[in-house]
Amino acid sequence: MKRDARTRLAKDHPRPVAGGVVAPKGFKCHAVEAGIKDPTRPRLDLTLIYSEVPAMCAATFTTNKVKAAPVRVSTEHVRRGRVQAIVANSGNANACTGPRGIQDAQAMCAAAARALDLRPSQVAVCSTGIIGLPLPMDRILPQMPGLVAGLQSRDGERVARAIMTSDTHPKSMAVEVRLGKTAVRLGATAKGAGMICPSMGTMFCFITTDAAIAPDELKKATLCAVEHSFNRISIDGDTSTNDTVIVLANGQAGNRRIESGTPGARQFRAALGHVMLTMAKMLVNDGERVTKFVTIRVVRAATHLDARRVAEAVANSMLVKCSWYGGDPNWGRVMHAVGYSRAARLREEMIDVYFDGLIAARGGLYAGTPIPELKKVTAKREFTVTIDLNLGTADYHVYTSDLSQEYVEFNSQEYAVRVAK
Amino acid sequence: MKRDARTRLAKDHPRPVAGGVVAPKGFKCHAVEAGIKDPTRPRLDLTLIYSEVPAMCAATFTTNKVKAAPVRVSTEHVRRGRVQAIVANSGNANACTGPRGIQDAQAMCAAAARALDLRPSQVAVCSTGIIGLPLPMDRILPQMPGLVAGLQSRDGERVARAIMTSDTHPKSMAVEVRLGKTAVRLGATAKGAGMICPSMGTMFCFITTDAAIAPDELKKATLCAVEHSFNRISIDGDTSTNDTVIVLANGQAGNRRIESGTPGARQFRAALGHVMLTMAKMLVNDGERVTKFVTIRVVRAATHLDARRVAEAVANSMLVKCSWYGGDPNWGRVMHAVGYSRAARLREEMIDVYFDGLIAARGGLYAGTPIPELKKVTAKREFTVTIDLNLGTADYHVYTSDLSQEYVEFNSQEYAVRVAK
Repeated sequence: MKRDARTRLAKDHPRPVAGGVVAPKGFKCHAVEAGIKDPTRPRLDLTLIYSEVPAMCAATFTTNKVKAAPVRVSTEHVRRGRVQAIVANSGNANACTGPRGIQDAQAMCAAAARALDLRPSQVAVCSTGIIGLPLPMDRILPQMPGLVAGLQSRDGERVARAIMTSDTHPKSMAVEVRLGKTAVRLGATAKGAGMICPSMGTMFCFITTDAAIAPDELKKATLCAVEHSFNRISIDGDTSTNDTVIVLANGQAGNRRIESGTPGARQFRAALGHVMLTMAKMLVNDGERVTKFVTIRVVRAATHLDARRVAEAVANSMLVKCSWYGGDPNWGRVMHAVGYSRAARLREEMIDVYFDGLIAARGGLYAGTPIPELKKVTAKREFTVTIDLNLGTADYHVYTSDLSQEYVEFNSQEYAVRVAK
Repeated sequence: MKRDARTRLAKDHPRPVAGGVVAPKGFKCHAVEAGIKDPTRPRLDLTLIYSEVPAMCAATFTTNKVKAAPVRVSTEHVRRGRVQAIVANSGNANACTGPRGIQDAQAMCAAAARALDLRPSQVAVCSTGIIGLPLPMDRILPQMPGLVAGLQSRDGERVARAIMTSDTHPKSMAVEVRLGKTAVRLGATAKGAGMICPSMGTMFCFITTDAAIAPDELKKATLCAVEHSFNRISIDGDTSTNDTVIVLANGQAGNRRIESGTPGARQFRAALGHVMLTMAKMLVNDGERVTKFVTIRVVRAATHLDARRVAEAVANSMLVKCSWYGGDPNWGRVMHAVGYSRAARLREEMIDVYFDGLIAARGGLYAGTPIPELKKVTAKREFTVTIDLNLGTADYHVYTSDLSQEYVEFNSQEYAVRVAK
C-alpha cells in the first residue's frame, strides 16, 4: 500500500518536457523586433501567444492602485472569459499614460485580433518597461501581420526572450503530467527583475495548458498557485503597476474534463503550483543584480498574519538585505526586523533564529555557534533563514534576495537616460 | 497691531546660543574613552549628562517590540518621574542580550548613581552600536568615578561626540527663548545614521532645559515635538531597537512655571519643536552614506492616514531612493509607490507630482516639463517632492534621503567584522 502510494506519487510528478509555452497541444507563438525602446538597437520586443482553438483563461493582476493601461484592458477582456491570445511587449510599460494609453492597449488587441480573425476582447495585452512614456504605436501596429504569419509551435523560448527587460536570461519551462491515461502539458514563460514584492510584485507569467478543465477549477487553481509562488517573492518590496499572470487552457489534450475536488484537480493543482513556484524562484534568482537567494521561513507564529508580517518585514529590510550581500550572519538585524514587523504577538525571549541548520540565536540571544560556522552558510548563493517564534502553529515563508551595490547603481539613472534617447 | 505681532514673533523666535546640552543653567556633562567597541582604538564612547538639582523628565522610546535592555530599564526609571542624569554609551547597543543585558543596564545606572549620590532610578541609561553582544562591563564600570569627577558646564559637544556611531560629525545645538522677562534655554544633542525610520526611527536625542514647566505640559510638548520631527524622518525604513528621546527640565531659569494652554506653553512648544526638528533634519543629512535630503510632501489627501501612507511609501521605496541617488527625476516611480501605498482613496488621474516648483506629472501623466529642467532640481543636494492627490484637505510630510551604493557597501559587513575583533 505504502509502495503503491509512492509509485503513484512518482508517476504523478510533473515530468519536464521541451517547448516552453508551445509544449501543450494547440498553442503557437512568435516574436519580432519592433524597436520599441530604441529603434537603433533592435531586439525581440513584441510577442504573441495563440491558442488555435477557443481557450479558457484565468488571470491575476497587480494590486497597485496605479494600474498600467494594458492591465486595465486585459482585466476587462479576461472577465469576459474568452481570451485566446496574448500580445505582449517589452521596452515600454504603457503605465501612467492616461486615456491615450488605454486607446493604445486597445489598438494592440484590435490589431492582433484582426490578424488572427478574433474579436479584440479575445486578446489580452501586456506591456513592461519604462513608466510614463507613450507606446510607439507607429512601430508596433505594422508588425502585427508579420507576428501572426510567423506563428509556430516549436520554439517557445522566443516569447521568453521578447518579454525580458533587465532579466539576464530568458525564463521558460514545460512539464507533462498524466491524468489517468491522458498526458496533459503545461508550458510557462515569465519575466521579472525589478519592482518585485509579495502580493504580486513588474513581472509577467504566461502559462499555457492543453488540459480540459472546468472554468471554476481553473480559477481556483490559478489563485492558489499564485498565492504560493509569486505572492511569496520579494526582491525590493516595490509592487509594480504591470504585474500579470495569465493561464490559458485549451482542452486539446483530450483528457476527461477536470472538475473541482477530484484526484485530477489535485494533480493539476500540484502541477500548476510546481510550474509557478519554479518560475517565481527563477525570478528571484535573476532579480536585478542579485547575488543571493534567501528563503525566509517563519514557524510557530501565533497567527498566519503574524507569520506573514514577520517574514515580509525581514525579507524587505534594507539592512538585512545588505547583510546577505556581504555574506554576513547578522542575526541581530533579523531580530530587529522581527521586532518592527507589526506582528501582534511576539516574545523576544522566545525567538530562535537559524541559518540553514545552524542556530544563531536562541531565546533572543546569541546561541554561541561560532561566527565562522554561521558565515559558511551566509557565504553560499542560496540559504534559508528560519525564525521560530515558539508561540503557536502558524507558518509562512517567502523567497527573497540580497540588496547589492550594483542594484543601486543600476536603478539610479534609468529614467533620464531613456527619455533622453 | 500688525507690527506688534511681528515684533513679538521676532522676539519669541528661539535665538541660537553656544554650549549644547550644558547651555541651560544647572546642567553638566562629561565623556571619556572606555574602549567599548575596541580597546585598542580608544575614542569617546561613554558619557554623562547631569542636572545639579532634581529635574523633570519626559521621554519617548522605540516602538520596536524587540527592545534593547537600556530602553526597558530607562522606561521604568522615566515612569517614576525623578530622572536627573543620563548615562550613555556608543559601540554596543546592549540589545538582544537577555537578563544579562538588563543587569548590565541596571549596573550602569547604579554605578553612575553611586558616584553622583543619587538613587539608581534617578539615572536613565542609553546604548547604541552593535546588536547581540554583551556590554564589556569590566571596561565601563571603572570609568564612572572619573566620568563624574570630570563633569563641567562649558563643552556640551563632548557628549555629542561620545554618542556617535556611523555619524560623520557631532550634532549639538542650543537656543534661548524669552518667556516674559526671563530667558529660558534648551540644549540638545543627537545621533543617528542607520536604522532610521518614521515612528522613531538607532537614534538618540537628549534635550536639557532650565525652564520651570508643569510635568504634564512637558510630556505633551515632548510628544508633540517628537511627532513632528523624529517621527517624520526615514533613511532606510528600519526602526531600531534602541531609539530614545529624553528631555530633562530642571527649572533653574527662574521663569514662572509654564502651564498648559498659556502663551508661555505655546512659546516653549515652538522652541522645543524647533530644536527637535533641527536635530531630526541633521540626522537625515548625516544618514549613512547619504547624498540627498528630500522632503516628501503629500497634499490634499482624503484623510491624514492616507497622506501619511503615501508619504511613507514614497520615502521608503528602494527604487525611488535609487533615483534620488542618481539625480534622476523619475516621476513614474513616485507614481508607482503612491499606487501601492495602501492609501484607501487614490485616483490615479487626479495625481500631480512636482519637483520643487516644477510640475513633472499632471493628472497622473507626464506634464511635458523638459527633463533637463527637472534634472536641475533632482541634481541638487536638497529638494522637495510634492504629491498633490487633489482629493481632500489632509497633508503630511516626511524627510528622507537617497539610497547610495556606499550605504549598501557600508552595511554589508558590519557584524562579522566586529564580532571577529
